Amino acid sequence: MAGRTARRRVTRICVGDTGNGAAAGDSALGKAAVSERADLLAAEEPLGIRIGGEAVSLTMRTPGDDVDLTAGFLFTEGIISSASDIVSIRICDGSQCGHDHEAGDAMGNIADVTLRAGLAAGPRRNFLTSSACGVCGKASIAELRVPGRFGLDEDLVQVPADVLAGLPDALRRAQRVFERTGGLHAAGLFSAAGELMAVREDVGRHNAVDKVVGWALQGGLLPLRGRVLLVSGRASFELVQKTVLAGVPVLAAVSAPSSLAVELAEDAGLTLAGFVRGGSLNVYSAPWRVIPPR
Amino acid sequence: MAGRTARRRVTRICVGDTGNGAAAGDSALGKAAVSERADLLAAEEPLGIRIGGEAVSLTMRTPGDDVDLTAGFLFTEGIISSASDIVSIRICDGSQCGHDHEAGDAMGNIADVTLRAGLAAGPRRNFLTSSACGVCGKASIAELRVPGRFGLDEDLVQVPADVLAGLPDALRRAQRVFERTGGLHAAGLFSAAGELMAVREDVGRHNAVDKVVGWALQGGLLPLRGRVLLVSGRASFELVQKTVLAGVPVLAAVSAPSSLAVELAEDAGLTLAGFVRGGSLNVYSAPWRVIPPR
Repeated sequence: MAGRTARRRVTRICVGDTGNGAAAGDSALGKAAVSERADLLAAEEPLGIRIGGEAVSLTMRTPGDDVDLTAGFLFTEGIISSASDIVSIRICDGSQCGHDHEAGDAMGNIADVTLRAGLAAGPRRNFLTSSACGVCGKASIAELRVPGRFGLDEDLVQVPADVLAGLPDALRRAQRVFERTGGLHAAGLFSAAGELMAVREDVGRHNAVDKVVGWALQGGLLPLRGRVLLVSGRASFELVQKTVLAGVPVLAAVSAPSSLAVELAEDAGLTLAGFVRGGSLNVYSAPWRVIPPR
Repeated sequence: MAGRTARRRVTRICVGDTGNGAAAGDSALGKAAVSERADLLAAEEPLGIRIGGEAVSLTMRTPGDDVDLTAGFLFTEGIISSASDIVSIRICDGSQCGHDHEAGDAMGNIADVTLRAGLAAGPRRNFLTSSACGVCGKASIAELRVPGRFGLDEDLVQVPADVLAGLPDALRRAQRVFERTGGLHAAGLFSAAGELMAVREDVGRHNAVDKVVGWALQGGLLPLRGRVLLVSGRASFELVQKTVLAGVPVLAAVSAPSSLAVELAEDAGLTLAGFVRGGSLNVYSAPWRVIPPR
């Protein structure tokens, strides 16, 4: 398996204050304006997923937790509905690719999946093949939505607002690779009391969530009732969809949600919080699950 | 066409200082801890792209500049190689979708493309259908790379480091939707002197770049010699690929590049700068195009 980081030479240039008030300290302190140094980068490699030998997906991801990522992808794409649908997931070791490999070079970029008999990766989205010409917003959600097994309405968990507000700091402390590269998104699963249960990092926001969901799926933890999922960036339609499918009742995002993310959250009964940072947060749907400060 | 923003009711909760030192001001100043207000969200809607009636892509995007987006997608995916390959791009008006539309409801989410005779949307990536089992890092770039017409080696433009460092402020000032929603990525095209030539926003980083490239393609501006492309987030493999295909010699990113982004930039002779913020920047490839401060 390839590493999660890669070391590169980089030319660092300090130009002093550009007027935005941010740190111009390096040159002010008399450091060289131009310096050469080693830098750690977040690794990005393609992962191809094959089911029964048939290619179904190619995603750019940070190597690591590839079995979790594959299992989560199969589940959140609606290809499987439980862990028992998976016979095996094998991450190939690159021994057949015919290239000379240096030590540490990237390998293992294909996941070969075997599902139980009768399951195949059929197309689930009829959006594109619909005979309609334009597709309106109302129809979008219906046509894009992956049907799921877990309803959220009966999940009566409530989370204190100050617990939600404190999650980003907890996630950041657990992001081992981000700390060294500054280049990774993360998804963290928390209890309603704010205890961190799992954290996964990836160059792709969707992959980080798929890795958490795949980990939970394989551990028999779905639906993730009473849990909170925190994502390090924005909340898109697809992230809300993955959260709902995994049966998580609360999704918190450090940054903004999109319009379609809020619409789907409302439809599904998901509590969606955005701009969770700096001691405040916005709740866009199902606010009753958030206990306000006294 | 749907709007670029959507207005929603939101519950804002201030919990005070969570220990991270960021703004806890709202409650400290005696404002209500919980308030209801209207919030503007960045719009996210699906755009389906059809070529000759055949579905080729479904992307979640912020409505607006949809013809630019479609043209840029066709070009950066290697489906077309010049503007003359496009006979027409028609954004459907939703009149046939069969739903009741309220005023301002989303429509126009299908782009119907007609290309000149002989062009089709064939699969360009052989990664997944390769007979190899694992694919190593070296092979990844070769197999994922879209062949392009424009070489960068002969582009001898040089850009002062302080011009590069000042671009993020200029981009932010031009981001009209971000300012109101906090939820959009942006791509900006600049001259080597730092003059802004075009800016496009989208919930998807790749779409923002495709919109800029599609705009330039249709204006007969490719290759974009001597120009600088700035992206508001990280630099991934795909963003580097789109930049190289458009013939832009310098890509600057506000945040971190990935390992594969740097490898492709080096291969292609692209100058890739990352962490362009706060008066400094890192140059990861072809640093000779950056003129250091005196």
